Amino acid sequence: MNPLAPTKAGTAGRSGEGVLPRLVIVGVGLIGGSCALALRAAGAVGEVVGVGRTRANLDEAIARGIVDRAYTLDEAWPSELAAADVVLVATPVAQVAPVLATIAAHAGPATVVTDAGSTKQDVVAAARAAFGPRVSRFVPAHPIAGTEHSGAAAAFPTLFRDRVTVVAPLPETAPDAVATVRTLWETCGARVIELDPARHDRIFAAVSHLPHVLAFALVAELASRPDAPDLFAHAASGFRDFTRIAGSSPEMWRDIAIANRAAILEALADYRAMLDRLTAAIAAGDGDALQRLFAQASDARRRWQAGAGAAKPVDR
Amino acid sequence: MNPLAPTKAGTAGRSGEGVLPRLVIVGVGLIGGSCALALRAAGAVGEVVGVGRTRANLDEAIARGIVDRAYTLDEAWPSELAAADVVLVATPVAQVAPVLATIAAHAGPATVVTDAGSTKQDVVAAARAAFGPRVSRFVPAHPIAGTEHSGAAAAFPTLFRDRVTVVAPLPETAPDAVATVRTLWETCGARVIELDPARHDRIFAAVSHLPHVLAFALVAELASRPDAPDLFAHAASGFRDFTRIAGSSPEMWRDIAIANRAAILEALADYRAMLDRLTAAIAAGDGDALQRLFAQASDARRRWQAGAGAAKPVDR
Repeated sequence: MNPLAPTKAGTAGRSGEGVLPRLVIVGVGLIGGSCALALRAAGAVGEVVGVGRTRANLDEAIARGIVDRAYTLDEAWPSELAAADVVLVATPVAQVAPVLATIAAHAGPATVVTDAGSTKQDVVAAARAAFGPRVSRFVPAHPIAGTEHSGAAAAFPTLFRDRVTVVAPLPETAPDAVATVRTLWETCGARVIELDPARHDRIFAAVSHLPHVLAFALVAELASRPDAPDLFAHAASGFRDFTRIAGSSPEMWRDIAIANRAAILEALADYRAMLDRLTAAIAAGDGDALQRLFAQASDARRRWQAGAGAAKPVDR
Repeated sequence: MNPLAPTKAGTAGRSGEGVLPRLVIVGVGLIGGSCALALRAAGAVGEVVGVGRTRANLDEAIARGIVDRAYTLDEAWPSELAAADVVLVATPVAQVAPVLATIAAHAGPATVVTDAGSTKQDVVAAARAAFGPRVSRFVPAHPIAGTEHSGAAAAFPTLFRDRVTVVAPLPETAPDAVATVRTLWETCGARVIELDPARHDRIFAAVSHLPHVLAFALVAELASRPDAPDLFAHAASGFRDFTRIAGSSPEMWRDIAIANRAAILEALADYRAMLDRLTAAIAAGDGDALQRLFAQASDARRRWQAGAGAAKPVDR
C-alpha cells in the first residue's frame, strides 16, 4: 500500500491514472504548491485537489496548473477525502488542528495524511486529538525549504531539490504510511531524515526559529525609530543577508512562535545570556573576551560553511 | 592640488608617471588591496607601496601585483612618506593611532592622508592627536564594502563598484584633500557621500555593527552547546544568510566593537528592549502583538529590498 512506490514511478500523468491517483493539498502556498509542481514534473501524481482560505490564491493555483480543482474551506472539500490517497496539510501551523479534525471525519481507511509544519509536537497533539487510534495513518513531516515569499504565486517545482525533509513518525505510525510520505518527498527531490518530534522542535528552535525572531526584532526596532529612512538608506549587504528572513510571512511566524514557544523561549534565554556576555565585554572594553567569543563564532561559522551548509540554498 | 583629477585620468600606468604617482597603503588586506587593484585597473596610479604587519601577506600582495614593494611596520617605510601623494590607512581600527603618529612625523606637506576604518570618531581623535593643525591634510573615510574574507589574498578590483564610500571631513579639512579622496574612491567605482563623523558612527552601529554582534552571539552560543554538531547539521539557508557576517574577522570586529562602543551599546539597549517585547509576547502567547511586530519588520524589510537595498551586494 504505497501508491508512490518507485517501481511505478514515471508512469503517471495528469489523467488521473498516476501512481498517486488523488492528492489533496490543504494550503496551496509556497510549500503545498511547490510539492504539487514537483510531483507533476515527475509524472508522479494524477489529480491534485486544492483547498484554501481565499478563492484568489486558489484561482492562481489553478491558473498555474498547480491544482486541477479547488475549494475554499467553507465549500464541499470533505467530499474529496474518502477517495484521496494522500492529504497534505500545508497551512500555517495554527490552522492545522481544525483541518485535521475535518480530515479525520471524512478520510478513507487507507488515506495517508501528512503535514508540512515547521513545528511537530503541537501538530502531533492535534493529530492525536483528531484521529484517535487512527493516528497510525498520520505522518508528521517538515520539508526544510522555503523562501521569504509565500502563496501559490511563489511556488516552483525545484524548491525541495537536494533539501532535507524531516519525517517524525510516532511509535504507532503505520510503516506503509511512512513509506508513502518518504517517497512523496524523495520524488520532489528531497533527502528524507527521521527525527523524534521533541528533538525536531528543539533543534529548529535553535537554528531556524530563533534567528527569525532575532531578525524580526532588529528590523522592527530600526523601523520604529524616527530616523528609520536615514538608517535604512545606509544599510548594505551585511544587513541585507542578516535580515532576509525578516521579510518572511508574519502570520506563519506568529504561529510558529506560539506553537513552539517552550523551545523558542529556552533558545532565547540561552541567546540572551551570550548577548549579556558580549555586551559586558563591549562595555568593559575587554578586547580579549570579544576576540575569544568572536573567534569562536567565526571558526564555527567557517567550519559549517565548508561542510554541509554550503550546499543548502534556502530554508524556512 | 588634486593628483587624481579627472582631466588626467587614464594616462597613468605602472611606470610611476601616473596621475597618482605614489600611493602608500598601510594594511594591504581586503580593503587596501582591492583599492590598489581598482586604481591599477583604471590606470590611475603609479607606484603602490605596501606596509603591513606580516611579511607573508605582503609577499602575497606583491605576487598578486597589488603593490610594487612592501615593508613590515618595523622596517623603513617612513622613508616612503615624504614623496607620497596619498597615504591610505586600511588597518584594523585599533592600529590606526600609532600608524597615524608615524605618518604625521614623516609625510610631506602636500601628502593627503586618509583611512578606511569602520568607525570615524575614534579615528578623528587619533588624527587630531597625531597631526595637530596639519589635520587639514587628513580625510576620514569609510568605504562601505567588504566580504567575510580578509587579507591580500581576498582582494579584488571590483569590490567598490556601485558601492558607497562615506567621506567624513572635519571643519578644517582642506578642500583639495577631500577632492583627492573623493576622486580616489570614485575611480574605484564607488559613490561618495559625506556624513558627520558622529552621525556616521551612530548609523553604522545600528545597521552594521549591531547585526555583526548579534550574529556572532548566535553562532558562539550554538557552538558552545554540547550538541552543537547536531544543531549545525540541521541548519539551512535562513541560518546561512543570518550568520554569514559571523564568519568575519574577529580582530577587526573586536576593534570596531571597542572603538564605537558608545553607539553600539546604545543600539544594543534599543535592540534588547524590542527583544524583551517579543519574548514577552511569545511567553504570553500574544498572537496579535507578534503579528503586529513581525508585520512591521516584514513590511519594512520588503520596502527596503524593493528600494536601494537590492542593488548592494556585499558590505562590512
